[in-house]
Amino acid sequence: MTPDTSAWETPRSRVRRKPERASYDPAAVFAVIDEALYCHVGLVRHGSPVVIPTIHAREGEVLYLHGSPAAGHLRDARLGVELCVAFTIVDGLALTRSARNHSLSYRSAVVFGQGQLIRDGALKLEALRAITEHVVPGRWDVVMQPSPAQLQETEVLAVAIREASMKSRTGPPQVDETDGANNAWAGVIPLITERGTPVPAPFVEPGTFAPSW
Amino acid sequence: MTPDTSAWETPRSRVRRKPERASYDPAAVFAVIDEALYCHVGLVRHGSPVVIPTIHAREGEVLYLHGSPAAGHLRDARLGVELCVAFTIVDGLALTRSARNHSLSYRSAVVFGQGQLIRDGALKLEALRAITEHVVPGRWDVVMQPSPAQLQETEVLAVAIREASMKSRTGPPQVDETDGANNAWAGVIPLITERGTPVPAPFVEPGTFAPSW
Repeated sequence: MTPDTSAWETPRSRVRRKPERASYDPAAVFAVIDEALYCHVGLVRHGSPVVIPTIHAREGEVLYLHGSPAAGHLRDARLGVELCVAFTIVDGLALTRSARNHSLSYRSAVVFGQGQLIRDGALKLEALRAITEHVVPGRWDVVMQPSPAQLQETEVLAVAIREASMKSRTGPPQVDETDGANNAWAGVIPLITERGTPVPAPFVEPGTFAPSW
Repeated sequence: MTPDTSAWETPRSRVRRKPERASYDPAAVFAVIDEALYCHVGLVRHGSPVVIPTIHAREGEVLYLHGSPAAGHLRDARLGVELCVAFTIVDGLALTRSARNHSLSYRSAVVFGQGQLIRDGALKLEALRAITEHVVPGRWDVVMQPSPAQLQETEVLAVAIREASMKSRTGPPQVDETDGANNAWAGVIPLITERGTPVPAPFVEPGTFAPSW
């Protein structure tokens, strides 16, 4: 079924500042969610905002979050509180000749919704597989999978993606009439996250290769 | 004056999960805030959580945030709503031989407080200088600084850092008895954010060097 894209723009998910940079297209939202290694989960606890960084995965229109049953945000979320999940990828620094016009190159997405606790063991295992594979593709099949007892010690929330947006700024920096009066360098300095040289644990046999993807 | 560190641990800022990884030491909190390029600001709007990525700077025990007066989070914050500001640095992927024990190497900080609007022009300029310098050290002095009119078009919030914590996980991955049954590679894959080759704007004169720091 094709997602009803028009419904993703709601009073909460609507981008008001520079709306020309926004999109409510599922493919655009999903691309940011999938590329982001981790996200920030916001919720309201005793009337106060709380923001927690965590890893995630997406399958179709469902976002998975996981953690210990004792983790505050999982306790809150399984009571059905509203979540705001932000995904942010910074691609570069966009420098102009005026301080005011400096900006970042970025892609960001936000999802609003409630977390539903996954109780079914097979679905939970599938969600944990998706989260593991999201961080290190190919990892799930080469490691010990959770035992039934370990599955009990982990909780997984599913958030239906029905209210979401993405926003991006790309290309050269914005320039206006206030940028003309000096000869400073201007342009974009890309920011790239790379994997460094793997550091094996002491018990790893020589000749065992670290995953690469 | 030495900050009263004991006061930074409050019911909101206290780390409950794996408290041995937490610190309320100002130097530790500040180090994460200062190294993070950007942060995620959480607040409550009409009872719902909202999380917004933005750049920042810190001077002493004050965190600066800025934006358009029309930006929702600045409108909310100047009404005195509570903010939760999260700073996250991921240093690596910590892989074990069991799916369950995988984790990240990270350093994160969180600050709770209210944003106070800076109305004084000189203080506002200083805050904008700090934010610019936080992103690109040395940049402020080589670019056009904001005109009085531009200063009006930007709002700056100061958040007193009085309720905060940091949390980190470093070193080799945790291993337990469930990790023994296979011979998968285990260890840490570092993640490093690097600056790529600068892309100059078309109007930049040849021979003008991009900032490096």
